Amino acid sequence: MIVGFLGFGEVASTLSEILIEDGCEVVSSSNGRSLKTLKLIKGLGVKDLNSFKEVAENCDILISANTPSKAVSIGKKYGSIADNIFLDLNNISPKSTKKIGDVVGENFVDGAIISKVGSDESVIFLSGEKAEEIAILDHFGLSVKVISDKIGDASKLKILRSIYTKGVSALLIETFEIAKQLNLEEDLLNTLAISEGDKFRSSSKSRIKNSIKHSRRKYEEVDEIIDFLKEFENVNVEFIESMKNTFK
Amino acid sequence: MIVGFLGFGEVASTLSEILIEDGCEVVSSSNGRSLKTLKLIKGLGVKDLNSFKEVAENCDILISANTPSKAVSIGKKYGSIADNIFLDLNNISPKSTKKIGDVVGENFVDGAIISKVGSDESVIFLSGEKAEEIAILDHFGLSVKVISDKIGDASKLKILRSIYTKGVSALLIETFEIAKQLNLEEDLLNTLAISEGDKFRSSSKSRIKNSIKHSRRKYEEVDEIIDFLKEFENVNVEFIESMKNTFK
Repeated sequence: MIVGFLGFGEVASTLSEILIEDGCEVVSSSNGRSLKTLKLIKGLGVKDLNSFKEVAENCDILISANTPSKAVSIGKKYGSIADNIFLDLNNISPKSTKKIGDVVGENFVDGAIISKVGSDESVIFLSGEKAEEIAILDHFGLSVKVISDKIGDASKLKILRSIYTKGVSALLIETFEIAKQLNLEEDLLNTLAISEGDKFRSSSKSRIKNSIKHSRRKYEEVDEIIDFLKEFENVNVEFIESMKNTFK
Repeated sequence: MIVGFLGFGEVASTLSEILIEDGCEVVSSSNGRSLKTLKLIKGLGVKDLNSFKEVAENCDILISANTPSKAVSIGKKYGSIADNIFLDLNNISPKSTKKIGDVVGENFVDGAIISKVGSDESVIFLSGEKAEEIAILDHFGLSVKVISDKIGDASKLKILRSIYTKGVSALLIETFEIAKQLNLEEDLLNTLAISEGDKFRSSSKSRIKNSIKHSRRKYEEVDEIIDFLKEFENVNVEFIESMKNTFK
């Protein structure tokens, strides 16, 4: 079993380490990339090919793990070079996912990483006709779950999840801002912990901290959510959209 | 120790049962009330006086537990008859609380019941100069917590809590509505349970069910929240306000 990575950032390197440890062969290419990436590829025991084209032609499963902005062009360029399965793991919208799927065709599998990659609770959600064939990766240490055979379901699920978790973060930021102005922060934490459970105390603090730290990214992600919401009726779109300003 | 109740609905009867079981004397009045209330008062062993005026004059702690719409007039009318402590337990806004407090004066204690009254996790939050004197009720089976000596803090804390919990319910209703339209409900539940913990599966379902059942009341409560939010700066008011339409 050979897995090829297009792009070699945090996702690719974390997954490669797990796959290699469990006996999978991994290929990628450092061509045109930084010295840091070259060292990372060598250090993990990933086979360094001459180009992404070679990577695409020399693996059983081709995984795109790039920056979101490059995902569509990379997908279109390399997704149909060989007859292998093409798994997109970029954090992109259902619309972008569809664009790649339309070019790659039946070999396309839509993947969404839930929770921080490499963490104990992290799962890769998959959808597409060939999703079951990628599920073999669970023999190589990865936690994967097939959602459906419909391309787009995994990324839709990811965006749905993100609406809820971002909304909760926004609610926490706003209520604790008011509580701060009233000098009732600690009391609010105690009050909410009654119904929200013991974990609430630490999880709420880390959510607020994390949301403020990555507010710019979250602000932009709300735009993707707004775009996604256009196709639904009977949804309080204004409520979801207006969380955006919390991350401004 | 004698506790007097102005009004004898669910809150008063539940608290009376706990107090009497732990050796506290409880008085109220069935004057002008339904046969059902009369039976409830007799059945629990509450002393039935001739009027609320008599109740106010013959107890150490006077508790108002009425409907929110009557809270202010009841408070103004009976809150300063005798020299006992007056505890308001109605589900009212910080503004209404202040109105009663202004009439009753230093004997006024602002109370907020968190979680369903009588449940294991239920706590009565108290604020006001005499709040510590009411804390004696914990010797009679009640779980009480003094927040501060400032009238209004308990009801402010309750409304803060309600912003968060209502917001979470609204987020659940909206995201699961979208998931339903995509046939991804069960997958969304599983996905969120990864980060939100094991309790999420049951708590989210009961929150959605409960919010839809009591949507009218929640819709009206958002108006109180909107009114409350006016006094704060640096708050994404639009986000909190717009949850209202989820309960329409």
